[in-house]
Amino acid sequence: MTETQKGADIRIEHDALGDVPVPSNRLWGAQTERSIHNFPIGRDNFKWSRPVIRAFGILKKSAALANGELGELPPEKVALIVQAAEEVIEGQWDDEFPLVVFQTGSGTQSNMNANEVIANRAIQIAGGVLGSKKPINPNDDVNRGQSSNDTFPTAMYIAAVEVIAGKLLPAITVLHDTLDAKATEFAHVIMIGRTHLQDATPITLGQAIGGWVAQLDEAARAIKESLPWLMELAIGGTAVGTGLNAHPKFGDTAARHISEVTGHPFVSAPNKFAALSAHDAMSHASGTLRTLAGALMKIANDVRWHASGPRAGLAEIHIPENEPGSSIMPGKINPTQCESMTMVAVQVYGNDAAVAFAASQGNFQLNVYKPVMLYNVMQSATILSESMLAFEEHCARGIEPNYERLKHNLESSLMLVTALNRHIGYEKSAQIALKAHRENSSLKESALSLGFVTEAEFDAWVKPEDMLGPTAAK
Amino acid sequence: MTETQKGADIRIEHDALGDVPVPSNRLWGAQTERSIHNFPIGRDNFKWSRPVIRAFGILKKSAALANGELGELPPEKVALIVQAAEEVIEGQWDDEFPLVVFQTGSGTQSNMNANEVIANRAIQIAGGVLGSKKPINPNDDVNRGQSSNDTFPTAMYIAAVEVIAGKLLPAITVLHDTLDAKATEFAHVIMIGRTHLQDATPITLGQAIGGWVAQLDEAARAIKESLPWLMELAIGGTAVGTGLNAHPKFGDTAARHISEVTGHPFVSAPNKFAALSAHDAMSHASGTLRTLAGALMKIANDVRWHASGPRAGLAEIHIPENEPGSSIMPGKINPTQCESMTMVAVQVYGNDAAVAFAASQGNFQLNVYKPVMLYNVMQSATILSESMLAFEEHCARGIEPNYERLKHNLESSLMLVTALNRHIGYEKSAQIALKAHRENSSLKESALSLGFVTEAEFDAWVKPEDMLGPTAAK
Amino acid sequence: MTETQKGADIRIEHDALGDVPVPSNRLWGAQTERSIHNFPIGRDNFKWSRPVIRAFGILKKSAALANGELGELPPEKVALIVQAAEEVIEGQWDDEFPLVVFQTGSGTQSNMNANEVIANRAIQIAGGVLGSKKPINPNDDVNRGQSSNDTFPTAMYIAAVEVIAGKLLPAITVLHDTLDAKATEFAHVIMIGRTHLQDATPITLGQAIGGWVAQLDEAARAIKESLPWLMELAIGGTAVGTGLNAHPKFGDTAARHISEVTGHPFVSAPNKFAALSAHDAMSHASGTLRTLAGALMKIANDVRWHASGPRAGLAEIHIPENEPGSSIMPGKINPTQCESMTMVAVQVYGNDAAVAFAASQGNFQLNVYKPVMLYNVMQSATILSESMLAFEEHCARGIEPNYERLKHNLESSLMLVTALNRHIGYEKSAQIALKAHRENSSLKESALSLGFVTEAEFDAWVKPEDMLGPTAAK
Amino acid sequence: MTETQKGADIRIEHDALGDVPVPSNRLWGAQTERSIHNFPIGRDNFKWSRPVIRAFGILKKSAALANGELGELPPEKVALIVQAAEEVIEGQWDDEFPLVVFQTGSGTQSNMNANEVIANRAIQIAGGVLGSKKPINPNDDVNRGQSSNDTFPTAMYIAAVEVIAGKLLPAITVLHDTLDAKATEFAHVIMIGRTHLQDATPITLGQAIGGWVAQLDEAARAIKESLPWLMELAIGGTAVGTGLNAHPKFGDTAARHISEVTGHPFVSAPNKFAALSAHDAMSHASGTLRTLAGALMKIANDVRWHASGPRAGLAEIHIPENEPGSSIMPGKINPTQCESMTMVAVQVYGNDAAVAFAASQGNFQLNVYKPVMLYNVMQSATILSESMLAFEEHCARGIEPNYERLKHNLESSLMLVTALNRHIGYEKSAQIALKAHRENSSLKESALSLGFVTEAEFDAWVKPEDMLGPTAAK
Repeated sequence: MTETQKGADIRIEHDALGDVPVPSNRLWGAQTERSIHNFPIGRDNFKWSRPVIRAFGILKKSAALANGELGELPPEKVALIVQAAEEVIEGQWDDEFPLVVFQTGSGTQSNMNANEVIANRAIQIAGGVLGSKKPINPNDDVNRGQSSNDTFPTAMYIAAVEVIAGKLLPAITVLHDTLDAKATEFAHVIMIGRTHLQDATPITLGQAIGGWVAQLDEAARAIKESLPWLMELAIGGTAVGTGLNAHPKFGDTAARHISEVTGHPFVSAPNKFAALSAHDAMSHASGTLRTLAGALMKIANDVRWHASGPRAGLAEIHIPENEPGSSIMPGKINPTQCESMTMVAVQVYGNDAAVAFAASQGNFQLNVYKPVMLYNVMQSATILSESMLAFEEHCARGIEPNYERLKHNLESSLMLVTALNRHIGYEKSAQIALKAHRENSSLKESALSLGFVTEAEFDAWVKPEDMLGPTAAK
Repeated sequence: MTETQKGADIRIEHDALGDVPVPSNRLWGAQTERSIHNFPIGRDNFKWSRPVIRAFGILKKSAALANGELGELPPEKVALIVQAAEEVIEGQWDDEFPLVVFQTGSGTQSNMNANEVIANRAIQIAGGVLGSKKPINPNDDVNRGQSSNDTFPTAMYIAAVEVIAGKLLPAITVLHDTLDAKATEFAHVIMIGRTHLQDATPITLGQAIGGWVAQLDEAARAIKESLPWLMELAIGGTAVGTGLNAHPKFGDTAARHISEVTGHPFVSAPNKFAALSAHDAMSHASGTLRTLAGALMKIANDVRWHASGPRAGLAEIHIPENEPGSSIMPGKINPTQCESMTMVAVQVYGNDAAVAFAASQGNFQLNVYKPVMLYNVMQSATILSESMLAFEEHCARGIEPNYERLKHNLESSLMLVTALNRHIGYEKSAQIALKAHRENSSLKESALSLGFVTEAEFDAWVKPEDMLGPTAAK
Repeated sequence: MTETQKGADIRIEHDALGDVPVPSNRLWGAQTERSIHNFPIGRDNFKWSRPVIRAFGILKKSAALANGELGELPPEKVALIVQAAEEVIEGQWDDEFPLVVFQTGSGTQSNMNANEVIANRAIQIAGGVLGSKKPINPNDDVNRGQSSNDTFPTAMYIAAVEVIAGKLLPAITVLHDTLDAKATEFAHVIMIGRTHLQDATPITLGQAIGGWVAQLDEAARAIKESLPWLMELAIGGTAVGTGLNAHPKFGDTAARHISEVTGHPFVSAPNKFAALSAHDAMSHASGTLRTLAGALMKIANDVRWHASGPRAGLAEIHIPENEPGSSIMPGKINPTQCESMTMVAVQVYGNDAAVAFAASQGNFQLNVYKPVMLYNVMQSATILSESMLAFEEHCARGIEPNYERLKHNLESSLMLVTALNRHIGYEKSAQIALKAHRENSSLKESALSLGFVTEAEFDAWVKPEDMLGPTAAK
Repeated sequence: MTETQKGADIRIEHDALGDVPVPSNRLWGAQTERSIHNFPIGRDNFKWSRPVIRAFGILKKSAALANGELGELPPEKVALIVQAAEEVIEGQWDDEFPLVVFQTGSGTQSNMNANEVIANRAIQIAGGVLGSKKPINPNDDVNRGQSSNDTFPTAMYIAAVEVIAGKLLPAITVLHDTLDAKATEFAHVIMIGRTHLQDATPITLGQAIGGWVAQLDEAARAIKESLPWLMELAIGGTAVGTGLNAHPKFGDTAARHISEVTGHPFVSAPNKFAALSAHDAMSHASGTLRTLAGALMKIANDVRWHASGPRAGLAEIHIPENEPGSSIMPGKINPTQCESMTMVAVQVYGNDAAVAFAASQGNFQLNVYKPVMLYNVMQSATILSESMLAFEEHCARGIEPNYERLKHNLESSLMLVTALNRHIGYEKSAQIALKAHRENSSLKESALSLGFVTEAEFDAWVKPEDMLGPTAAK
């Protein structure tokens, strides 16, 4: 039930379709109230998060400043709007944004929600009457030079850039740096390599972890490269991309103010028609988040496999024991941070599928899947960030080698035979390894019994520490 | 920050890994508290919803009853657990379930959360000391004969069946019935058919809507067929599927009690190893929700295209005008319910991709993507339900033909020429249509000018009302 | 380059848009030739496969028989069409079907390809002139009572049912039966269970394999349940679903003939409007193929992990050594059948995503993504079948336990402690296991040193063979 | 059946597992023949295409040159290998590459196929005996300093870069340039804009097409940005990333030769461990292809909607009439190029889902989903290219405005009212539009009857040509 249905005190707000009763203590107006009634869908999970509300505040503040600068709004109106918008930016009025993702596909109602709240708050500040639209009108003043069709995607991109640049990239760095230090720390710890899950030639634990670090580096690079596209804002396009009813310099000016508030170099999109009707930049950015998720899945899987055991698994590394792992098996400890992270990865893949689907469905001058795209990109960036930080703190930091097991595995490996290729050729080497495998003997026993090498040769040629390549620490 | 980090009063709870300070007014215990600290991921959106908490209550009540019946728990413990579990079922303790999806992949911590809350609440009822585990121990009593590995999937399936059978299928029926009535109401309203977006031979509006009704019927059938698989519960499998530490009849007995509480015919899964290590039933059920989402996307798209206009679109139907549609274009009305519904469809597609991915990733005796599968299936079923109800109320109910436009479109159609095939063959008919198209003339003018038919023949043969097939209303 | 572009001898064929030069030795006609020129897309991989061409032959034969039975075509025409169609069914004219998936979205051109080839072949049989349309006209005779809009989906569903019922389900049975025999054979082979990749309580190898068998059973059941929906044919709906220009009994009669030819109980779809404009049945069937793919991924992953090693992996089972595994590491053997199968699974997931996307995109009376849906479903069913057969022959059949390793792993397991829960409670059991883990001692040593049990009790209570549950072989 | 099963003449080849009969006229050897027998999966559609075989030739030529330069192979061996490899590059031996995607997940068997064919062809050139491995050994010479684990991904990336840079980007340019010329040509053609499928304020047809052009520009930019990552080659990493058995300069030297042969600036990957065990670059590149596919779906949908009709649709543009559109409705013409293109888009989305899934599944030092990733990326790039070229030639080039309809739609639009906002405010403007809508009157009639403007004002303020914004042509 909505607040009015529950019997809240009401006042009457008015929009183009008529009168609407609104809870008297609320700053929102008629259109927000209509949306509450018309879209009771996913109310538990699909309200806009803090960063999105903040983005609307930034947008409306910047728009007011631009309109002021261009002579489209008088200074006193600008000042009122800016003050109200700053309160929205700061998070004072989050409860006044009750709408959900599954509304109109342009996000019109959330844009109007922002207009209504800021107008009414400005009216409050000015000592006016809520709902009177005086001295500040939500459409003609707060939304001046704007349409939902350019403001909503502008807020989308502000929110996406802020969460990606401000939260996700730093979280990658945190995990990256911890793993990078581990790679250095374990640069001399030799272990068996594995391909196809089968024993292969040796590597160091540092090299293995260094591979993960490289994946994070590359994913971060791809994510960063997606940002300039997201920084091209629709603002200035108004309803269909032509900029009708906005000052010709409004888009550029508003983008400049947005850049100042956020510290990110936003610009007005070079083609506003594409900026309203397509959100390929969101699909692209979401794809880079998916790339990161795929990398994290690989990393988390490797960690939990290396840590598998404690007795009947690989047991090559230790990870922190954070919780009792089983409600029935006493003493069981599980790689829960890895499990959480791989579930996050799976969720991000799903979110990305939704974003990409949505991005393909624009028609004519508008793509009306904006809210669902925004929601999924924000969620992906958020849970990836939080998952990396938790994983770093509760798992990565505590990775330690199980030296005994690493040594045992290494010594028993048949793939050290590869070192013989250059001396006796691939086929004879293969005979040695297969014989040892089938007879469950050691490589050396097999080599000597076949007579392909002398013991001295074997000892000189088959040295794990010489098989680590030029990138290994010396 | 967690409550303890914020300085709440605390008491000490204890688990196998040691002591844990817990907010003193909370019913949860050590393991829940550990999870709060270790998994600060997605806290805004990923806590368990009411139906999932309810499912845990149902499960724990039924388990206690089964243990009592089988002599595994004394009656006084059973009574305490049942009372506490019933309060959980009713929703009294939802705030005591603070954990999120991205925890351990078996849902162990949420199972322990349920055990801890029910044990402590039972202790409260018995007048004991919170955290004392007396007279009720969360592991040995509430979790008796159970492991997270069989309880979490049992709760998953209970929750999924309840939301699908109890919320989703009824919502389909509501939309179905409204559309079905519209199909009957407009059974005589002839309109142009369209294939490839191009004019085709005529149909009735009732037939068009009847196609949507058939899609809903079929999707509902597929969803229903997925339920028996979901009703095969893991309960009785305990840790790895062998049922170790559970009474041999525990699974069947608990399933019987679950059936009684829910009214759905749950059974103990015939193969517990599959029941713990795979959740193909969830992937399959999710696939049927996706089928429904695809059908709704088609229906909602058809509605908004038929309603497009008002002047320069197809404008063949009217739909309710629920909100001002634009913050800049006065008087604009948009098909917002269709937009909301198609965004829901896109989200469900994404959710389904996550579920299917997760379902493929089991290893050995356990799939550790249970929470993310549950979350996405619950969300899909919920938003599909709510979207259909909103669409029914605010859109479908109000669909009305625009008779004038329908008539105009029909009369100008060139594809009425198809009626001539049987009389003069495909090729001559094609000549008539192409000539009319290229000369922008009427079909009749073209036909007569080519001399392929007489006027009398044309009038007798080309009658839209005779082109509607045996299924049209007479 | 097309054949005509390469300078083949030509004859002139004619369609509604005019004359078209066609290679003189080809049976196809004008519309096929146009399509060859207009859609040079994916020519290497996207031509229709044998089962699809066969399905068109079945359809056209059945349509001719139905038209004959209903007095819509004279017996001599029926006989000619049936003879030509039977040759198409048998595969004599596969080279005459040169079109690709990426053509018109209704498959019109492939329907016309079938009409043209069968008409010209019938003309040949009758001693007529290719392209003369006498005595058999591709549109008026071969396509009588039909439209591409109902024939293409009819051929789709025939092809899909034949490959699923005729190839896929039997392939599942082959793999199922081999694994089921292994489950029985190894019913007494005790091994360590694993959850979260960590050691858990024991199971038998037979139980583990039995879990895979259950997954195959369940997937097969879901796939079978999808068939009745696919057996509802669009035939009889003609252009828009009304059945215009078809005899009122044509759909039912043709479906009956299709059933006779194929041996599957096809029917005429109850709602033709849905049958043309939606292919939710394909999306649903594809979803069940995805469920199977997910199950196979789990099975193949388990096999390769159990077979990992030979020295530093789990090494619990042996699988056949089919190929040298490495071009550089001599003697390396890899689980290649598992790798092939998991790649098939991934491909099927991708195919399914394409099908589901396509299914959502219908408009009005037609979904114009039919060819791409058909292609992906056929491919998924085919590669799943072939992969299961290869896996069965080259891998599953040869699975053997590594008894020594299984015994070693089992004996070292700490999770046998779970058997003590019922005797000394969860918490004391946990202390025993954690102590053994941290001190790298045996469970028994730890238990005795903590004084929680006597040696006699330990020996009596901790017996792996008593921990296998009621489903284990005795 | 394989060739040997059909009774082809044979010779005996030999590998580490023993003797293998091979068709005597074939250049392939033992390992290729084993793979043919072990992987009869998807033989119709999943063999490697020309660009992949070419990439193997480039790789093996470059490797031989590098080995020669570094003193690892004598000049006469280098010369023989180079000559044989160049024949492979040119396409002389495509029939000698019979293997399919669903083989070992490292592509080992395709690497060995290349080694075997090049070795045997070199032996032929040298006048030796096929299968003798003299004077050229497939492992020790052709594969020198290499492992499948670094060669296959190297060939992958060469093939992917060549098809994307050499085929896809030029195809985008072709379509882009045609559309860009249309945008200029129709810069003065005013039409109604549409948002939410509803009439909105006017734009020009040039602006609408310019939006599509911008989408192509942006997608091309994203695709180009993905190339540097793909140009980081695994070569030099050998089996596990350490470079064991390769000359330390081998990777860099081989990459330099590859750059010279291809003309693209390939480098040796900075981190070889990531280069073997992850293919995030492929997932990322595939994501950018998906972005293009999404853009093409939007463009193709817009085209067919604008061209819908001819009588009862929007009918605002004409597109070429390429084929008869219906086998039953004479004279029907359909937007078949759009349908083909949107099916391609759907396929690319599915392919991308497969690639991304595969990319997440690496373990330890190897990702064993390489072939399926390569296949899908190659296919996506190919069908996108071919689809854009076909669309350009058979559709885009022929787009022409339907001036009459555009004018009629524009004049009837109610959204011209938006021009009044700045003069009389949003709310009065809304009243005018809603009144006109409900009374089915013209905007001017409504405005005058409400008395909000004078006729002179209306005429001065409501001018479509003044509503097109600063980007419109003057």
